[in-house]
Amino acid sequence: MSVSDNSRSPKHEFAPLKNDRLLRAMRFEPIDTTPVWMMRQAGRYLPEYKATRAEAGDFMSLCRDTARATEVTMQPLRRMDLDAAILFSDILTIPDAMGLGLYFETGEGPKFKHPIRQQADLDRLPTLDVNDSLDYVMHAVTSIRKELNGQVPLFGFSGSPWTLATYMIEGGSSKDYRYTKGFLYSNPEFLHQLLDKLAIAVIDYLDAQVVAGAQVLQIFDSWGGALGHRQFIDFSHAYNKRIVAELKQRHPDVPVVLFTKGGGLWLDVQADSAADALGLDWTMPLDRARQVLTESQRDLTKRHKTLQGSKAIQGNLDPATLYGSPESIRSEVKLMLDGAYAGGDKTGYIANLGHGITQWVNPDNAKVFVDAVHDYQI
Amino acid sequence: MSVSDNSRSPKHEFAPLKNDRLLRAMRFEPIDTTPVWMMRQAGRYLPEYKATRAEAGDFMSLCRDTARATEVTMQPLRRMDLDAAILFSDILTIPDAMGLGLYFETGEGPKFKHPIRQQADLDRLPTLDVNDSLDYVMHAVTSIRKELNGQVPLFGFSGSPWTLATYMIEGGSSKDYRYTKGFLYSNPEFLHQLLDKLAIAVIDYLDAQVVAGAQVLQIFDSWGGALGHRQFIDFSHAYNKRIVAELKQRHPDVPVVLFTKGGGLWLDVQADSAADALGLDWTMPLDRARQVLTESQRDLTKRHKTLQGSKAIQGNLDPATLYGSPESIRSEVKLMLDGAYAGGDKTGYIANLGHGITQWVNPDNAKVFVDAVHDYQI
Repeated sequence: MSVSDNSRSPKHEFAPLKNDRLLRAMRFEPIDTTPVWMMRQAGRYLPEYKATRAEAGDFMSLCRDTARATEVTMQPLRRMDLDAAILFSDILTIPDAMGLGLYFETGEGPKFKHPIRQQADLDRLPTLDVNDSLDYVMHAVTSIRKELNGQVPLFGFSGSPWTLATYMIEGGSSKDYRYTKGFLYSNPEFLHQLLDKLAIAVIDYLDAQVVAGAQVLQIFDSWGGALGHRQFIDFSHAYNKRIVAELKQRHPDVPVVLFTKGGGLWLDVQADSAADALGLDWTMPLDRARQVLTESQRDLTKRHKTLQGSKAIQGNLDPATLYGSPESIRSEVKLMLDGAYAGGDKTGYIANLGHGITQWVNPDNAKVFVDAVHDYQI
Repeated sequence: MSVSDNSRSPKHEFAPLKNDRLLRAMRFEPIDTTPVWMMRQAGRYLPEYKATRAEAGDFMSLCRDTARATEVTMQPLRRMDLDAAILFSDILTIPDAMGLGLYFETGEGPKFKHPIRQQADLDRLPTLDVNDSLDYVMHAVTSIRKELNGQVPLFGFSGSPWTLATYMIEGGSSKDYRYTKGFLYSNPEFLHQLLDKLAIAVIDYLDAQVVAGAQVLQIFDSWGGALGHRQFIDFSHAYNKRIVAELKQRHPDVPVVLFTKGGGLWLDVQADSAADALGLDWTMPLDRARQVLTESQRDLTKRHKTLQGSKAIQGNLDPATLYGSPESIRSEVKLMLDGAYAGGDKTGYIANLGHGITQWVNPDNAKVFVDAVHDYQI
């Protein structure tokens, strides 16, 4: 794997961070209350988001519009006491920059005009200069970081190689990953070539986001859960592990969250990485997750013969919980936090949903969630 | 829960069973080789299925046509050395019989004309006389059983109450279960009313299938994996457990398989039921599944203060494995069976895919799978 220069620091001067609750929790330092944010917190459940998006035109135009991408990132922070912001962008910017022709069809999700189906398609993929073809992302990161003015830390993010590969090969989202799994089982080398190219791009992309101002990173392995156990290790986790290791080498102080939707059964697998935190969907109770991670830490320490640090946990309220009454949201939050802290440590946990907030949620209920997390006495 | 008369035996005389490998494995009795069948084995990957379906017209017409439903059930058995047949039908026959107006839109899956969205919809649902409104299913069961002539045992099946409820409330398949989870979190009592009605219908339906000739039963909880941990227990498993308990009381000798897609994390939950076997998708390695079940058996024995029997396991090859070469299929099958028998028992396992076989599979590869299972030396 060849990657560009390393150990680069942010190239801008930014205001000092006022709320470092989330970063402290990830380092297992004492916290006053539980940090909380929401995946897709800048999204269609907010009328102000819909208004800004309508001004921008389509979704990718909004991502490319520095001022408006900054605006929508800030919108949820004005309504709610969130402990992090996240760059407004899409996980498919990398394949788009590689020339696959991203477009969105109403009600159908993202599509690619030129899916990867044969060796020639693969050979045609360029090595990205992320500061050139994805410069709009870096501009957004810097602009948002300035606008935040130290209020909360800013997440940068990327899709995982496996997740990006499924979109690139299928040509969009998929129910059964017919073509991607076709390669996996009939021509794994082809898939590995693509995943390798993507891993290099993701490293450069996240590195550049840090240089532009991102203070914490998340890798979204949205479709990791579609794989079998061994296939998850070989075709998804192996690449995520490589990416995190390289990023931690370049930016030791920038924490990384690894989120695999449907990855509860593989917490032990994901623990074998330099990630600071693991994100979970709602299928796994957090007391069990903590127990699995404690055991993994012990096993990995033995195996690697060096002390392995604890992994923070992020998650995992079912976004549909926010369809319920304020009382039921508070009661679900309490159960979740009881589980998160059941292991005894009163830190090492970031509250979040187990997947993105849906467009049908009443924003008042999102605020109930955020406040309920903060009101919980650790 | 009120249910109709119990302890009824099959009302027909059938030929004695020649191949009882699958039933023996479920009882943990010695077997000569591993029993194997495939979910959706009568399906679109077979050209002869497509021909028969074209003659019948649409999918539901095929289900209602006793002779053709029998024909398509038998088709895979002619090509492959399968150890079970499964009734050709759909999981949505119950809601259809309840008057929801099932129809299929090309490429979009099943839909209902009259989804359940308010109390009046719920109150309107009739208590089914399954031998009347679902008589075509019972006719198919009896006809298939006769046609099998003792070759292999015949599975009857039903969708689980939770899975049926999602289709009935959403009006079709769904990505985020907006309405169903809306009820779950905002008006759980409404959902429980529906689930209770469905549980009664499923008991009567499966009971009637046994009386008509089914020798083993499977409950498909296809969407159980969409739930949170506690919600799975309360809104899915509680009903499945009640159904299995009632069926085992009426038909103690008819084994029941409980299959929850995405249910690997809840094997211990599902073990707390009278099911004889638990079905697994491909996300969980079978050696770990066996280990979890052994621990659950111990815990449950302690908790209930009576010895709990072992649960057989069914599954769990990723259907996409069949896109690969014969060599790679054989190697995946070997790894799967090594895992299945890693606990030491050389029985208690039924080989299957982790979900239905897809329409894109070459039938020759399905045969490679079946033969590879039988060729494996236990």
